[in-house]
Amino acid sequence: MGGVSTADRAERVPKQDRSRATRQRLLEAAVSCLAEHGWAGSTVSVVAERAGVSRGAAQHHFPTREDLFTAAVEYVAEERSTALRALFPQGAAGDRHAVVAALVDLYTGPLFRAALHLWVAASNEDQLRPRVTELESRVGRETHRIAVDLLAADETLPGVRETVQGLLDMARGLGLANLLTDDAARRERVVAQWADVLEEALG
Amino acid sequence: MGGVSTADRAERVPKQDRSRATRQRLLEAAVSCLAEHGWAGSTVSVVAERAGVSRGAAQHHFPTREDLFTAAVEYVAEERSTALRALFPQGAAGDRHAVVAALVDLYTGPLFRAALHLWVAASNEDQLRPRVTELESRVGRETHRIAVDLLAADETLPGVRETVQGLLDMARGLGLANLLTDDAARRERVVAQWADVLEEALG
Repeated sequence: MGGVSTADRAERVPKQDRSRATRQRLLEAAVSCLAEHGWAGSTVSVVAERAGVSRGAAQHHFPTREDLFTAAVEYVAEERSTALRALFPQGAAGDRHAVVAALVDLYTGPLFRAALHLWVAASNEDQLRPRVTELESRVGRETHRIAVDLLAADETLPGVRETVQGLLDMARGLGLANLLTDDAARRERVVAQWADVLEEALG
Repeated sequence: MGGVSTADRAERVPKQDRSRATRQRLLEAAVSCLAEHGWAGSTVSVVAERAGVSRGAAQHHFPTREDLFTAAVEYVAEERSTALRALFPQGAAGDRHAVVAALVDLYTGPLFRAALHLWVAASNEDQLRPRVTELESRVGRETHRIAVDLLAADETLPGVRETVQGLLDMARGLGLANLLTDDAARRERVVAQWADVLEEALG
């Protein structure tokens, strides 16, 4: 039956590992690049150089610029989601303040900055638009699920779903307010107050 | 004393009117252009053509690209603020739902789209950044003042200031969520729910 010899297998596994490591380096470099230079300054070549990968290898993993940057934002968003769940392994355990602060944190770092550049570029570029729309809705749904879980919000009650959605909209708006200036001090006060308001609203 | 003859005056006034009309056409064309084509596609020439004004006349009013687009966003923001106050000449008259909906509307039209392009461009362009930062803070303060007035919010009470700030952050986030898709149906539900929550929080 042909089959794969032990020697072949031993060789293939490290190769897959190397390939996965290259892919990850490219994805992380792509998000940093987008966050720092925006869409106009973000090309496959620039990212390949930043990741220390040949342009050919980069194009092997991501044939187009759109492939690379949408995959990058999705990858980092998944990493952030996993990290957020890991922060609260037993759920919120009643500390909704900490959960609200952690949710808002999702929107104030380089990932949000990168995603923002991608959204804004997609609003003017037909090639990018459907992919980013689809990505945004997938990431948005996952973030909503995490928020509901960690806040122990009972979505069978009227209004609770919209309360959580509005909180995530606020978090996005806080991210935007942090784009040009360090808005951390104001943000902390808003988060503290809204966590109180939310506590009341969620019961 | 020299002085200005009646004939001179008669000639000057229409000239000033014409000049003001040209300026307004340029500002409105600049906002539409930014909203539709983004920063990269927005130059003084493109706007001049759109406004039906010569490039020289446009540069007489706005010597640089930065002058034109920051002035445009500020002008339209002021128009919107005036229109918002005019919507509620007696203040909110107790209808906070209507006020919340009108505040959120500020962030879902072409002005927000234009401002977003300007913010994102400013985050990567040193020439634009200080001017847009200053503009954003001025417009933000004015919007906050209007929100406090129309919501009849008493900022001497603890937390009220931050509640209103958070509402405007939510409005900005809802604007962002509307960038790639028509988010009106979801937004309406979030606004209805948060208007209830706010009613409770503001007392």
